[in-house]
Amino acid sequence: MQIITLGPKGTFSHEAVTRYDSQAEIIFKPTVWDVFEGVTSNQTSFGMVPIENSVTGSVGFTLDALLHFDLRIKEETVLPIKHNLAGKGNLDTIKTVYAHPQTHAQCKNFLRTRLPKSEIIDTSSNAKSAELLSQQKDLEHAAIIPNIAAQIYNLPLLEKNIQDHKFNVTRFILIGKEDSPKTGRDKTSMIVYPVADRPGILCDMLEEFKKRNINLTKIESRPSGKLGDYLFYIDYEGHREDEWVVEALKKIESHSAFLKILGSYPKRC
Amino acid sequence: MQIITLGPKGTFSHEAVTRYDSQAEIIFKPTVWDVFEGVTSNQTSFGMVPIENSVTGSVGFTLDALLHFDLRIKEETVLPIKHNLAGKGNLDTIKTVYAHPQTHAQCKNFLRTRLPKSEIIDTSSNAKSAELLSQQKDLEHAAIIPNIAAQIYNLPLLEKNIQDHKFNVTRFILIGKEDSPKTGRDKTSMIVYPVADRPGILCDMLEEFKKRNINLTKIESRPSGKLGDYLFYIDYEGHREDEWVVEALKKIESHSAFLKILGSYPKRC
Repeated sequence: MQIITLGPKGTFSHEAVTRYDSQAEIIFKPTVWDVFEGVTSNQTSFGMVPIENSVTGSVGFTLDALLHFDLRIKEETVLPIKHNLAGKGNLDTIKTVYAHPQTHAQCKNFLRTRLPKSEIIDTSSNAKSAELLSQQKDLEHAAIIPNIAAQIYNLPLLEKNIQDHKFNVTRFILIGKEDSPKTGRDKTSMIVYPVADRPGILCDMLEEFKKRNINLTKIESRPSGKLGDYLFYIDYEGHREDEWVVEALKKIESHSAFLKILGSYPKRC
Repeated sequence: MQIITLGPKGTFSHEAVTRYDSQAEIIFKPTVWDVFEGVTSNQTSFGMVPIENSVTGSVGFTLDALLHFDLRIKEETVLPIKHNLAGKGNLDTIKTVYAHPQTHAQCKNFLRTRLPKSEIIDTSSNAKSAELLSQQKDLEHAAIIPNIAAQIYNLPLLEKNIQDHKFNVTRFILIGKEDSPKTGRDKTSMIVYPVADRPGILCDMLEEFKKRNINLTKIESRPSGKLGDYLFYIDYEGHREDEWVVEALKKIESHSAFLKILGSYPKRC
Protein backbone atom coordinates (compact mmCIF):
# COMPACT_ATOMS: atom_id res chain seq x y z
CA MET A 1 0.00 0.00 0.00
CA GLN A 2 1.33 3.41 -0.95
CA ILE A 3 0.38 6.32 1.36
CA ILE A 4 1.17 10.02 1.09
CA THR A 5 1.61 11.85 4.40
CA LEU A 6 3.18 14.90 6.02
CA GLY A 7 6.96 14.95 6.06
CA PRO A 8 9.79 15.21 6.62
CA LYS A 9 10.66 11.72 7.90
CA GLY A 10 10.20 11.48 11.66
CA THR A 11 6.93 13.38 12.10
CA PHE A 12 3.95 12.06 14.06
CA SER A 13 2.20 11.63 10.68
CA HIS A 14 5.03 9.32 9.64
CA GLU A 15 4.54 7.39 12.90
CA ALA A 16 0.77 7.16 12.30
CA VAL A 17 1.29 5.66 8.84
CA THR A 18 3.80 3.06 10.01
CA ARG A 19 1.45 2.02 12.84
CA TYR A 20 -1.47 1.77 10.43
CA ASP A 21 0.50 -0.28 7.92
CA SER A 22 4.05 -1.19 8.80
CA GLN A 23 4.70 -2.27 5.19
CA ALA A 24 3.38 0.93 3.60
CA GLU A 25 5.48 2.67 1.01
CA ILE A 26 5.45 6.30 2.15
CA ILE A 27 5.62 9.50 0.10
CA PHE A 28 6.27 12.67 2.10
CA LYS A 29 4.73 16.05 1.32
CA PRO A 30 5.25 19.37 3.10
CA THR A 31 1.58 20.35 3.63
CA VAL A 32 -1.88 18.83 4.10
CA TRP A 33 -2.95 20.46 0.85
CA ASP A 34 -0.19 18.62 -1.04
CA VAL A 35 -1.36 15.30 0.42
CA PHE A 36 -4.91 15.90 -0.85
CA GLU A 37 -3.60 17.01 -4.24
CA GLY A 38 -1.43 13.91 -4.52
CA VAL A 39 -4.42 11.60 -3.98
CA THR A 40 -6.68 13.66 -6.24
CA SER A 41 -4.18 13.55 -9.11
CA ASN A 42 -3.74 9.76 -8.68
CA GLN A 43 -0.11 10.10 -7.63
CA THR A 44 -1.19 7.39 -5.21
CA SER A 45 -4.50 6.01 -3.89
CA PHE A 46 -4.35 7.03 -0.22
CA GLY A 47 -3.25 9.85 2.05
CA MET A 48 -3.02 10.10 5.82
CA VAL A 49 -3.40 13.42 7.64
CA PRO A 50 -4.09 14.52 11.23
CA ILE A 51 -7.59 15.86 11.81
CA GLU A 52 -7.85 16.39 15.58
CA ASN A 53 -5.65 16.38 18.67
CA SER A 54 -7.05 15.79 22.14
CA VAL A 55 -5.16 18.79 23.54
CA THR A 56 -4.99 21.29 20.69
CA GLY A 57 -8.23 20.53 18.83
CA SER A 58 -8.99 20.33 15.13
CA VAL A 59 -6.44 20.71 12.36
CA GLY A 60 -7.83 23.60 10.31
CA PHE A 61 -5.93 22.81 7.12
CA THR A 62 -7.41 19.32 7.03
CA LEU A 63 -10.98 20.57 7.55
CA ASP A 64 -10.45 23.06 4.71
CA ALA A 65 -9.02 20.43 2.39
CA LEU A 66 -11.99 18.12 3.10
CA LEU A 67 -14.28 20.94 1.98
CA HIS A 68 -12.26 21.77 -1.13
CA PHE A 69 -11.27 18.37 -2.56
CA ASP A 70 -13.60 15.62 -3.78
CA LEU A 71 -12.12 12.86 -1.60
CA ARG A 72 -13.62 10.60 1.08
CA ILE A 73 -12.64 9.54 4.58
CA LYS A 74 -11.98 5.79 4.40
CA GLU A 75 -10.60 5.10 7.88
CA GLU A 76 -9.78 6.81 11.15
CA THR A 77 -6.85 5.84 13.37
CA VAL A 78 -5.70 7.19 16.71
CA LEU A 79 -2.03 7.77 17.62
CA PRO A 80 -0.85 8.43 21.20
CA ILE A 81 1.30 11.55 21.10
CA LYS A 82 4.42 10.86 23.16
CA HIS A 83 7.08 13.51 23.41
CA ASN A 84 10.54 12.42 24.54
CA LEU A 85 13.65 14.26 25.67
CA ALA A 86 16.62 13.09 23.60
CA GLY A 87 20.28 13.93 24.07
CA LYS A 88 23.72 12.56 24.85
CA GLY A 89 24.07 14.22 28.28
CA ASN A 90 21.72 14.25 31.28
CA LEU A 91 19.39 16.75 32.93
CA ASP A 92 22.37 18.46 34.63
CA THR A 93 24.47 18.93 31.50
CA ILE A 94 21.71 20.17 29.18
CA LYS A 95 21.81 23.87 28.34
CA THR A 96 19.90 24.02 25.04
CA VAL A 97 16.73 22.22 23.93
CA TYR A 98 15.46 22.12 20.34
CA ALA A 99 11.67 22.02 20.23
CA HIS A 100 8.85 22.82 17.84
CA PRO A 101 6.74 25.66 19.37
CA GLN A 102 3.64 23.43 19.71
CA THR A 103 5.74 20.72 21.33
CA HIS A 104 7.30 23.30 23.64
CA ALA A 105 3.79 24.37 24.68
CA GLN A 106 2.77 20.74 25.27
CA CYS A 107 5.80 20.04 27.50
CA LYS A 108 5.81 23.31 29.40
CA ASN A 109 5.59 21.89 32.93
CA PHE A 110 8.36 19.40 32.29
CA LEU A 111 10.68 22.09 30.93
CA ARG A 112 9.87 24.51 33.75
CA THR A 113 10.36 22.03 36.58
CA ARG A 114 13.10 19.76 35.24
CA LEU A 115 15.12 22.07 32.95
CA PRO A 116 14.38 25.53 34.37
CA LYS A 117 17.67 27.07 33.21
CA SER A 118 17.88 25.67 29.71
CA GLU A 119 17.36 27.77 26.61
CA ILE A 120 14.59 26.55 24.27
CA ILE A 121 15.32 26.96 20.56
CA ASP A 122 12.24 26.97 18.31
CA THR A 123 12.31 24.66 15.29
CA SER A 124 9.97 24.29 12.33
CA SER A 125 9.02 20.62 12.95
CA ASN A 126 9.64 17.78 15.41
CA ALA A 127 11.66 16.02 12.73
CA LYS A 128 13.82 19.14 12.38
CA SER A 129 14.51 19.13 16.16
CA ALA A 130 15.87 15.60 15.79
CA GLU A 131 17.96 16.52 12.77
CA LEU A 132 19.50 19.52 14.57
CA LEU A 133 20.32 17.41 17.63
CA SER A 134 21.90 14.73 15.45
CA GLN A 135 24.44 17.33 14.25
CA GLN A 136 25.64 18.00 17.82
CA LYS A 137 28.20 15.80 19.59
CA ASP A 138 28.27 17.46 23.04
CA LEU A 139 26.34 16.85 26.28
CA GLU A 140 24.75 20.31 26.31
CA HIS A 141 22.19 19.87 23.54
CA ALA A 142 18.86 18.08 23.74
CA ALA A 143 15.66 17.92 21.72
CA ILE A 144 12.03 17.00 22.27
CA ILE A 145 11.08 14.45 19.63
CA PRO A 146 8.68 11.63 18.69
CA ASN A 147 9.76 7.98 19.04
CA ILE A 148 10.06 7.55 15.30
CA ALA A 149 12.46 10.49 14.96
CA ALA A 150 14.65 9.00 17.72
CA GLN A 151 14.81 5.75 15.75
CA ILE A 152 15.56 7.41 12.41
CA TYR A 153 18.34 9.63 13.77
CA ASN A 154 19.50 7.01 16.30
CA LEU A 155 19.21 9.43 19.24
CA PRO A 156 19.29 8.26 22.90
CA LEU A 157 16.14 9.09 24.93
CA LEU A 158 16.79 10.62 28.38
CA GLU A 159 13.14 10.84 29.49
CA LYS A 160 10.11 9.35 27.79
CA ASN A 161 6.54 10.64 27.68
CA ILE A 162 7.27 14.13 28.98
CA GLN A 163 4.11 15.86 27.66
CA ASP A 164 2.03 17.65 30.31
CA HIS A 165 -1.27 16.02 29.35
CA LYS A 166 -0.49 12.33 29.77
CA PHE A 167 -3.58 11.62 27.71
CA ASN A 168 -2.58 13.21 24.42
CA VAL A 169 -3.75 11.55 21.23
CA THR A 170 -4.18 12.63 17.63
CA ARG A 171 -6.86 11.25 15.35
CA PHE A 172 -5.66 10.72 11.78
CA ILE A 173 -7.82 9.99 8.74
CA LEU A 174 -7.00 7.89 5.71
CA ILE A 175 -8.37 9.63 2.63
CA GLY A 176 -9.06 8.11 -0.77
CA LYS A 177 -11.46 8.19 -3.71
CA GLU A 178 -14.06 6.10 -1.82
CA ASP A 179 -15.20 5.61 1.74
CA SER A 180 -15.80 2.24 3.48
CA PRO A 181 -18.67 -0.27 3.35
CA LYS A 182 -21.04 -0.80 6.28
CA THR A 183 -19.67 -2.78 9.26
CA GLY A 184 -22.47 -2.18 11.79
CA ARG A 185 -20.26 0.05 13.94
CA ASP A 186 -19.60 3.06 11.76
CA LYS A 187 -19.28 6.81 11.84
CA THR A 188 -20.17 9.33 9.18
CA SER A 189 -18.68 12.80 8.70
CA MET A 190 -20.34 15.66 6.86
CA ILE A 191 -20.24 19.39 6.22
CA VAL A 192 -23.47 21.42 6.30
CA TYR A 193 -24.13 25.04 5.41
CA PRO A 194 -27.59 26.09 6.63
CA VAL A 195 -30.02 27.90 4.31
CA ALA A 196 -30.29 30.88 6.63
CA ASP A 197 -28.50 32.49 9.57
CA ARG A 198 -31.53 32.52 11.87
CA PRO A 199 -31.79 31.58 15.55
CA GLY A 200 -32.58 27.87 15.83
CA ILE A 201 -31.50 26.64 12.40
CA LEU A 202 -28.75 24.44 13.86
CA CYS A 203 -31.16 23.24 16.53
CA ASP A 204 -33.67 22.23 13.84
CA MET A 205 -31.03 20.20 12.03
CA LEU A 206 -29.83 18.43 15.20
CA GLU A 207 -33.44 17.62 16.06
CA GLU A 208 -33.47 15.22 13.09
CA PHE A 209 -30.63 13.25 14.66
CA LYS A 210 -32.25 13.30 18.08
CA LYS A 211 -35.58 11.97 16.75
CA ARG A 212 -33.77 8.95 15.32
CA ASN A 213 -31.53 8.39 18.32
CA ILE A 214 -28.38 9.12 16.31
CA ASN A 215 -25.48 10.08 18.57
CA LEU A 216 -23.31 13.03 17.51
CA THR A 217 -19.62 12.41 18.12
CA LYS A 218 -18.33 15.85 17.06
CA ILE A 219 -19.66 19.22 15.99
CA GLU A 220 -17.67 22.24 14.98
CA SER A 221 -18.63 25.51 13.37
CA ARG A 222 -16.02 26.91 11.06
CA PRO A 223 -15.89 30.26 9.28
CA SER A 224 -17.16 29.82 5.71
CA GLY A 225 -14.68 32.39 4.46
CA LYS A 226 -15.68 35.29 6.65
CA LEU A 227 -15.95 35.25 10.44
CA GLY A 228 -19.53 35.07 11.70
CA ASP A 229 -20.78 33.01 8.73
CA TYR A 230 -20.36 29.34 9.48
CA LEU A 231 -20.19 25.90 8.00
CA PHE A 232 -20.82 23.02 10.40
CA TYR A 233 -18.63 19.93 10.50
CA ILE A 234 -20.67 17.14 12.09
CA ASP A 235 -19.65 13.53 12.88
CA TYR A 236 -22.23 10.99 14.05
CA GLU A 237 -22.63 7.29 14.66
CA GLY A 238 -24.05 5.26 11.79
CA HIS A 239 -23.31 4.60 8.12
CA ARG A 240 -24.61 6.85 5.36
CA GLU A 241 -26.46 3.81 4.00
CA ASP A 242 -28.24 3.03 7.29
CA GLU A 243 -31.95 3.64 6.79
CA TRP A 244 -32.33 6.03 9.75
CA VAL A 245 -29.29 8.03 8.61
CA VAL A 246 -30.69 8.31 5.06
CA GLU A 247 -33.97 9.64 6.55
CA ALA A 248 -32.26 12.17 8.82
CA LEU A 249 -30.08 13.44 5.96
CA LYS A 250 -33.10 13.90 3.70
CA LYS A 251 -34.67 16.17 6.34
CA ILE A 252 -31.42 18.02 7.04
CA GLU A 253 -30.95 18.69 3.34
CA SER A 254 -34.15 20.72 3.35
CA HIS A 255 -32.52 23.08 5.91
CA SER A 256 -29.23 23.24 4.00
CA ALA A 257 -27.84 25.36 1.21
CA PHE A 258 -24.97 22.88 0.96
CA LEU A 259 -24.43 19.38 2.34
CA LYS A 260 -21.35 17.27 1.66
CA ILE A 261 -20.90 13.73 2.99
CA LEU A 262 -17.20 13.27 3.72
CA GLY A 263 -17.56 9.52 4.12
CA SER A 264 -18.62 6.63 6.35
CA TYR A 265 -15.95 4.49 7.99
CA PRO A 266 -15.52 2.04 10.88
CA LYS A 267 -15.63 3.77 14.29
CA ARG A 268 -12.27 3.42 16.04
CA CYS A 269 -12.67 5.91 18.89
CA MET B 1 -2.29 50.51 29.02
CA GLN B 2 0.04 47.56 29.47
CA ILE B 3 -0.75 44.42 27.42
CA ILE B 4 0.96 41.01 27.33
CA THR B 5 0.92 39.25 24.00
CA LEU B 6 2.67 36.60 21.91
CA GLY B 7 6.20 37.44 20.88
CA PRO B 8 8.74 37.88 19.54
CA LYS B 9 8.37 41.42 18.19
CA GLY B 10 6.89 41.41 14.70
CA THR B 11 4.18 38.75 15.10
CA PHE B 12 0.56 39.24 14.06
CA SER B 13 -0.27 39.36 17.79
CA HIS B 14 2.08 42.33 18.09
CA GLU B 15 0.28 43.96 15.16
CA ALA B 16 -3.14 43.29 16.75
CA VAL B 17 -2.09 45.00 19.99
CA THR B 18 -0.69 48.09 18.27
CA ARG B 19 -3.90 48.40 16.22
CA TYR B 20 -6.04 48.03 19.32
CA ASP B 21 -4.03 50.59 21.29
CA SER B 22 -1.18 52.32 19.50
CA GLN B 23 0.13 53.65 22.84
CA ALA B 24 0.12 50.29 24.62
CA GLU B 25 3.22 49.20 26.50
CA ILE B 26 3.75 45.64 25.29
CA ILE B 27 5.23 42.66 27.11
CA PHE B 28 6.08 39.66 24.91
CA LYS B 29 5.68 36.04 26.00
CA PRO B 30 6.48 32.88 24.03
CA THR B 31 3.16 31.01 24.49
CA VAL B 32 -0.56 31.64 25.00
CA TRP B 33 -0.30 29.91 28.38
CA ASP B 34 2.33 32.44 29.50
CA VAL B 35 0.07 35.32 28.52
CA PHE B 36 -2.77 33.93 30.68
CA GLU B 37 -0.36 33.30 33.56
CA GLY B 38 0.98 36.83 33.35
CA VAL B 39 -2.50 38.34 33.68
CA THR B 40 -3.51 35.86 36.42
CA SER B 41 -0.44 36.69 38.50
CA ASN B 42 -1.05 40.43 38.08
CA GLN B 43 2.12 40.98 36.09
CA THR B 44 -0.18 43.26 34.13
CA SER B 45 -3.96 43.72 33.79
CA PHE B 46 -4.57 42.63 30.20
CA GLY B 47 -3.46 40.09 27.65
CA MET B 48 -4.21 39.76 23.94
CA VAL B 49 -4.25 36.40 22.18
CA PRO B 50 -5.57 35.01 18.87
CA ILE B 51 -8.67 32.84 19.23
CA GLU B 52 -9.80 32.13 15.65
CA ASN B 53 -8.58 32.57 12.09
CA SER B 54 -10.96 32.66 9.13
CA VAL B 55 -8.84 30.18 7.19
CA THR B 56 -7.30 27.89 9.81
CA GLY B 57 -10.02 27.89 12.49
CA SER B 58 -9.78 28.05 16.27
CA VAL B 59 -6.56 28.41 18.24
CA GLY B 60 -6.62 25.35 20.48
CA PHE B 61 -4.19 26.68 23.07
CA THR B 62 -6.39 29.72 23.66
CA LEU B 63 -9.54 27.61 24.09
CA ASP B 64 -7.68 25.43 26.61
CA ALA B 65 -6.37 28.41 28.54
CA LEU B 66 -9.89 29.90 28.72
CA LEU B 67 -11.03 26.65 30.32
CA HIS B 68 -8.12 26.46 32.75
CA PHE B 69 -7.64 30.04 33.96
CA ASP B 70 -10.14 32.18 35.84
CA LEU B 71 -10.01 35.14 33.44
CA ARG B 72 -12.67 36.85 31.33
CA ILE B 73 -12.96 38.01 27.73
CA LYS B 74 -13.23 41.80 27.83
CA GLU B 75 -13.03 42.68 24.14
CA GLU B 76 -12.73 41.11 20.73
CA THR B 77 -10.84 42.67 17.83
CA VAL B 78 -10.33 41.53 14.26
CA LEU B 79 -7.02 41.83 12.37
CA PRO B 80 -6.72 41.34 8.59
CA ILE B 81 -3.90 38.84 8.02
CA LYS B 82 -1.73 40.18 5.22
CA HIS B 83 1.34 38.25 4.17
CA ASN B 84 3.99 40.11 2.18
CA LEU B 85 7.03 39.07 0.20
CA ALA B 86 10.08 41.00 1.42
CA GLY B 87 13.57 41.05 -0.02
CA LYS B 88 16.23 43.20 -1.67
CA GLY B 89 16.02 41.56 -5.11
CA ASN B 90 13.05 40.87 -7.38
CA LEU B 91 11.04 37.81 -8.44
CA ASP B 92 13.76 36.84 -10.93
CA THR B 93 16.67 36.99 -8.50
CA ILE B 94 15.05 35.20 -5.56
CA LYS B 95 16.28 31.66 -4.90
CA THR B 96 15.42 31.16 -1.21
CA VAL B 97 12.33 32.17 0.76
CA TYR B 98 12.07 32.08 4.58
CA ALA B 99 8.54 31.25 5.70
CA HIS B 100 6.75 29.86 8.73
CA PRO B 101 5.09 26.54 7.74
CA GLN B 102 1.55 27.93 8.32
CA THR B 103 2.42 31.02 6.28
CA HIS B 104 3.88 28.82 3.55
CA ALA B 105 0.59 26.89 3.46
CA GLN B 106 -1.41 30.13 3.29
CA CYS B 107 0.65 31.48 0.34
CA LYS B 108 0.94 28.24 -1.60
CA ASN B 109 -0.56 29.43 -4.88
CA PHE B 110 1.58 32.55 -4.92
CA LEU B 111 4.77 30.56 -4.33
CA ARG B 112 3.86 27.94 -6.90
CA THR B 113 2.93 30.35 -9.68
CA ARG B 114 5.30 33.28 -9.06
CA LEU B 115 8.35 31.61 -7.48
CA PRO B 116 8.12 28.02 -8.75
CA LYS B 117 11.87 27.38 -8.59
CA SER B 118 12.68 28.92 -5.22
CA GLU B 119 13.54 26.86 -2.16
CA ILE B 120 11.30 27.44 0.89
CA ILE B 121 13.09 27.36 4.24
CA ASP B 122 10.81 26.65 7.24
CA THR B 123 11.12 29.01 10.20
CA SER B 124 9.64 28.91 13.70
CA SER B 125 7.69 32.21 13.46
CA ASN B 126 6.91 35.03 11.03
CA ALA B 127 9.09 37.32 13.12
CA LYS B 128 11.97 34.85 12.78
CA SER B 129 11.57 34.88 8.97
CA ALA B 130 12.08 38.65 9.07
CA GLU B 131 15.08 38.38 11.38
CA LEU B 132 16.74 35.78 9.13
CA LEU B 133 16.19 37.92 6.04
CA SER B 134 17.58 40.98 7.80
CA GLN B 135 20.90 39.13 8.17
CA GLN B 136 21.22 38.67 4.39
CA LYS B 137 22.58 41.35 2.08
CA ASP B 138 22.14 39.63 -1.30
CA LEU B 139 19.34 39.64 -3.89
CA GLU B 140 18.69 35.89 -3.61
CA HIS B 141 16.94 35.79 -0.24
CA ALA B 142 13.35 36.71 0.52
CA ALA B 143 10.87 36.14 3.35
CA ILE B 144 7.10 36.12 3.81
CA ILE B 145 6.31 38.44 6.70
CA PRO B 146 3.62 40.62 8.34
CA ASN B 147 3.63 44.41 7.83
CA ILE B 148 4.82 45.04 11.37
CA ALA B 149 7.87 42.80 10.95
CA ALA B 150 8.80 44.69 7.75
CA GLN B 151 8.69 47.94 9.71
CA ILE B 152 10.70 46.63 12.67
CA TYR B 153 13.45 45.10 10.53
CA ASN B 154 13.22 47.82 7.87
CA LEU B 155 12.75 45.33 5.05
CA PRO B 156 11.55 46.35 1.56
CA LEU B 157 8.30 44.71 0.39
CA LEU B 158 8.34 43.26 -3.13
CA GLU B 159 4.70 42.11 -3.22
CA LYS B 160 1.95 42.87 -0.74
CA ASN B 161 -1.02 40.76 0.27
CA ILE B 162 0.17 37.50 -1.29
CA GLN B 163 -2.00 35.10 0.78
CA ASP B 164 -4.21 32.76 -1.26
CA HIS B 165 -7.41 33.56 0.63
CA LYS B 166 -7.73 37.30 0.13
CA PHE B 167 -10.23 37.33 2.99
CA ASN B 168 -8.03 36.16 5.81
CA VAL B 169 -8.66 37.61 9.25
CA THR B 170 -7.84 36.60 12.80
CA ARG B 171 -10.07 37.36 15.74
CA PHE B 172 -8.12 38.30 18.88
CA ILE B 173 -9.48 38.58 22.42
CA LEU B 174 -8.43 40.92 25.18
CA ILE B 175 -8.44 39.02 28.46
CA GLY B 176 -8.54 40.46 31.96
CA LYS B 177 -9.96 39.90 35.42
CA GLU B 178 -13.39 41.22 34.39
CA ASP B 179 -15.54 41.30 31.28
CA SER B 180 -17.39 44.35 29.87
CA PRO B 181 -20.64 46.09 30.85
CA LYS B 182 -23.75 45.93 28.67
CA THR B 183 -23.77 48.08 25.50
CA GLY B 184 -26.92 46.74 23.79
CA ARG B 185 -24.90 45.01 21.05
CA ASP B 186 -22.96 42.34 22.89
CA LYS B 187 -21.76 38.78 22.61
CA THR B 188 -21.29 36.21 25.34
CA SER B 189 -18.91 33.22 25.29
CA MET B 190 -19.27 30.13 27.43
CA ILE B 191 -18.10 26.54 27.89
CA VAL B 192 -20.65 23.79 28.64
CA TYR B 193 -20.12 20.15 29.55
CA PRO B 194 -23.42 18.24 29.25
CA VAL B 195 -24.60 15.98 32.10
CA ALA B 196 -24.79 12.94 29.85
CA ASP B 197 -23.54 11.72 26.48
CA ARG B 198 -26.95 10.87 25.06
CA PRO B 199 -28.44 11.59 21.63
CA GLY B 200 -30.14 14.96 21.71
CA ILE B 201 -28.49 16.56 24.75
CA LEU B 202 -26.87 19.31 22.67
CA CYS B 203 -30.13 19.80 20.79
CA ASP B 204 -31.99 20.25 24.12
CA MET B 205 -29.51 22.92 25.19
CA LEU B 206 -29.68 24.82 21.89
CA GLU B 207 -33.50 24.69 22.05
CA GLU B 208 -33.28 27.13 24.98
CA PHE B 209 -31.54 29.68 22.77
CA LYS B 210 -33.95 29.10 19.90
CA LYS B 211 -37.03 29.63 22.13
CA ARG B 212 -35.68 33.04 23.13
CA ASN B 213 -34.55 34.04 19.64
CA ILE B 214 -30.90 34.18 20.72
CA ASN B 215 -28.58 33.86 17.71
CA LEU B 216 -25.56 31.57 18.06
CA THR B 217 -22.43 33.03 16.51
CA LYS B 218 -20.12 30.05 17.05
CA ILE B 219 -20.23 26.50 18.34
CA GLU B 220 -17.39 24.08 18.67
CA SER B 221 -17.05 20.73 20.37
CA ARG B 222 -13.67 20.09 21.86
CA PRO B 223 -12.23 16.94 23.42
CA SER B 224 -12.56 17.18 27.22
CA GLY B 225 -9.26 15.31 27.63
CA LYS B 226 -10.14 12.19 25.70
CA LEU B 227 -11.43 12.04 22.14
CA GLY B 228 -15.15 11.30 21.91
CA ASP B 229 -15.98 13.10 25.19
CA TYR B 230 -16.66 16.74 24.46
CA LEU B 231 -16.94 20.19 25.94
CA PHE B 232 -18.89 22.74 23.90
CA TYR B 233 -17.61 26.26 23.32
CA ILE B 234 -20.62 28.42 22.43
CA ASP B 235 -20.77 32.13 21.51
CA TYR B 236 -24.10 33.92 21.15
CA GLU B 237 -25.55 37.38 20.79
CA GLY B 238 -26.58 39.13 24.00
CA HIS B 239 -25.06 40.08 27.36
CA ARG B 240 -25.00 37.67 30.30
CA GLU B 241 -27.10 40.24 32.20
CA ASP B 242 -29.81 40.45 29.52
CA GLU B 243 -32.99 38.97 30.99
CA TRP B 244 -33.54 36.43 28.17
CA VAL B 245 -29.92 35.28 28.39
CA VAL B 246 -30.22 34.80 32.16
CA GLU B 247 -33.33 32.66 31.60
CA ALA B 248 -31.75 30.55 28.87
CA LEU B 249 -28.64 29.93 30.98
CA LYS B 250 -30.73 28.83 33.97
CA LYS B 251 -32.36 26.16 31.78
CA ILE B 252 -29.07 25.12 30.16
CA GLU B 253 -27.47 24.73 33.57
CA SER B 254 -29.97 21.98 34.36
CA HIS B 255 -28.56 19.99 31.39
CA SER B 256 -24.94 20.71 32.33
CA ALA B 257 -22.38 19.09 34.57
CA PHE B 258 -20.24 22.21 34.12
CA LEU B 259 -20.96 25.68 32.75
CA LYS B 260 -18.41 28.49 32.63
CA ILE B 261 -19.21 31.98 31.36
CA LEU B 262 -16.08 33.32 29.67
CA GLY B 263 -17.43 36.85 29.50
CA SER B 264 -19.72 39.32 27.74
CA TYR B 265 -18.21 41.97 25.49
CA PRO B 266 -19.18 44.34 22.67
CA LYS B 267 -19.79 42.52 19.36
CA ARG B 268 -17.19 43.61 16.76
CA CYS B 269 -17.75 40.96 14.08
